[in-house]
Amino acid sequence: MEIYGILEKVRAQKPLVHHLTNWVTIYDCANIVKVLGASPVMAHAKEESGDMAKLASSLVLNIGTLTPEFIDSMKIAAKSANEKNIPIILDVCGAGATKLRDEKCFELLDNVKINIIKGNASEVARIAGENVQTKGVDASEVEKDLIEIAASLAKERDCTVVITGKEDIIADKDRHLIVKNGHELMSHVVGTGCMTTSVIGTFAAVENNLVNAAAAGLCCYEIAAELAAEETNGPGTFKEKLFDNIYNLNKEQIEKMQKVE
Amino acid sequence: MEIYGILEKVRAQKPLVHHLTNWVTIYDCANIVKVLGASPVMAHAKEESGDMAKLASSLVLNIGTLTPEFIDSMKIAAKSANEKNIPIILDVCGAGATKLRDEKCFELLDNVKINIIKGNASEVARIAGENVQTKGVDASEVEKDLIEIAASLAKERDCTVVITGKEDIIADKDRHLIVKNGHELMSHVVGTGCMTTSVIGTFAAVENNLVNAAAAGLCCYEIAAELAAEETNGPGTFKEKLFDNIYNLNKEQIEKMQKVE
Amino acid sequence: MEIYGILEKVRAQKPLVHHLTNWVTIYDCANIVKVLGASPVMAHAKEESGDMAKLASSLVLNIGTLTPEFIDSMKIAAKSANEKNIPIILDVCGAGATKLRDEKCFELLDNVKINIIKGNASEVARIAGENVQTKGVDASEVEKDLIEIAASLAKERDCTVVITGKEDIIADKDRHLIVKNGHELMSHVVGTGCMTTSVIGTFAAVENNLVNAAAAGLCCYEIAAELAAEETNGPGTFKEKLFDNIYNLNKEQIEKMQKVE
Repeated sequence: MEIYGILEKVRAQKPLVHHLTNWVTIYDCANIVKVLGASPVMAHAKEESGDMAKLASSLVLNIGTLTPEFIDSMKIAAKSANEKNIPIILDVCGAGATKLRDEKCFELLDNVKINIIKGNASEVARIAGENVQTKGVDASEVEKDLIEIAASLAKERDCTVVITGKEDIIADKDRHLIVKNGHELMSHVVGTGCMTTSVIGTFAAVENNLVNAAAAGLCCYEIAAELAAEETNGPGTFKEKLFDNIYNLNKEQIEKMQKVE
Repeated sequence: MEIYGILEKVRAQKPLVHHLTNWVTIYDCANIVKVLGASPVMAHAKEESGDMAKLASSLVLNIGTLTPEFIDSMKIAAKSANEKNIPIILDVCGAGATKLRDEKCFELLDNVKINIIKGNASEVARIAGENVQTKGVDASEVEKDLIEIAASLAKERDCTVVITGKEDIIADKDRHLIVKNGHELMSHVVGTGCMTTSVIGTFAAVENNLVNAAAAGLCCYEIAAELAAEETNGPGTFKEKLFDNIYNLNKEQIEKMQKVE
Repeated sequence: MEIYGILEKVRAQKPLVHHLTNWVTIYDCANIVKVLGASPVMAHAKEESGDMAKLASSLVLNIGTLTPEFIDSMKIAAKSANEKNIPIILDVCGAGATKLRDEKCFELLDNVKINIIKGNASEVARIAGENVQTKGVDASEVEKDLIEIAASLAKERDCTVVITGKEDIIADKDRHLIVKNGHELMSHVVGTGCMTTSVIGTFAAVENNLVNAAAAGLCCYEIAAELAAEETNGPGTFKEKLFDNIYNLNKEQIEKMQKVE
């Protein structure tokens, strides 16, 4: 699978990636898009979220700090994105933790076309209708086979599904890929999950095959994390080195280190 | 006093620490909880702040960028926390600076049970009824004896009071502790005060003796700051090293460096 | 032109710099003020934004993640600042991207006295009435001579105009300065533009000549960026080193490296 080629397209086309995301990691989401070479924008006002989506090449939605009003702005941006036919990625952050999160995820999925659903195992399982309780925004254990859950949800919602974890699963109704890159330090710093979504949104902005786009994005991001981990011994400096390594990521590193199956 | 033992409990139990905090340092608040080994969550919508509190082991409130609506969400979360009997820590950030801040602090204190009140000298003095004008969110000078102010407020509100500064005072109605760790660089970077509150909230999630919990949290955090300061010469890299050093903090460092009296 | 002297005044007077800014880079805006030696505060509630402005020495407005309600709070803060006669700097972030941004910029400019307008070339050109479409929040190309645009807008609005770019232009109705410091890495990390505005706001808090204040602020900030770039090879660690270098910036570095014409 071509990975570096998609990163090259990101760097050459510098797509505008519109976000309605959470307030905790909003900086990291913007910055990861920037260091990839693309252009982030965050415009959540209902009066402009649709207009900004018209200028963008993809739309990232993340419900991490949702309110009902914020979901309404997401719907406006999403309808605009659907009309323009740009991909929408939804991070179902914290699905299963509260009634509000579950309801609003389904409200979004039922009212606009979401092209990629992304979450950790327990979040995606919840959206797929499995009986899972999520503890806050960190992953809980899921019994069932994750590839099966991803494929089934992809078929039900006619979309691509990404389940992140030690190994990432990317599936649409026809096939799936597994990305085995990454580093354990990623789970000890806030923002790595949200940044994953922004990375996938950025790659989806330049590559129509969304399974390939998501896998390539995950792979690049997680190779950079492996390189960063070699340069640090803690989560604080790790995150800064992650930005450095994505910015400097080259073809040789990707070809040597990629583990996409 | 046992300090490392409480940190070990944090790392073993990985408590969920719910926050309604300010938008400036929200990332740092989440990340300090994460690097301690616990699990942060921030859910401010009034429709879910109470539900999320039910899943949590402690609740951190910080009025740094308050609005009346945000305080309403705090009250919902706090009532839920009171019912579940999990500790609530309130950072009275900027108390004394504006009428709104004073009013809303008292509204919270009068309507829900707050277990720990935390602020710098001028903020806590204001809440204790002293005549102090706070300049923004940074500490102003206070004439009166701080231990006396802390103890008196603790008695009045039947809670634990933490006054941070060069030396930190932790008092309830019966006793007080002083933590003399820390480094001057902490006062030259935004977020160290808010992170202190999240650290205390995290330790309070696993230790019922709130004076001990607060003192242990402050001590660990400030030892990490001392270690970080040795590795840097400026506030930017200092903060990242602070995260690294908390993540890696061990028993020997704590026993050798702790200054809790 | 005296540059270090103004920085010294910032460090000695520690002015309170009030912000109503965007949610993406709010931490960076606060922190850059802090590492300069001043005191940042962010209070956006309409119930206190005016009161906080009365305590402050300058007011920074940034429309990066505006809503109509947020603009209303800005107007309250700005009226209070106008009454107290403290300088207001407006970052017209993303002007030209959506109808909402254009409308609200003009609403602010028409209803309160703005002392410094700051943006990149396409944003300022839009505010000056040129026909430019901005893509998100990053700069688009502008045909016309930028010094002419800045001077003309400064005359029209009786204010100081700052156009940032590879070379920064600072103009009022009588004269202009060019700052040629800075480093290319600044454009590869989110927040450098917003921080520029906070830096200018901080310098304007202690120096009445606003062209000099803005030029000195830009120069110090960009020299620190040059020093930071020498110590890193990527945008993540660059930003932390930028904070370190501003904190440690001294007279010799400024005199040797300054490029203000």
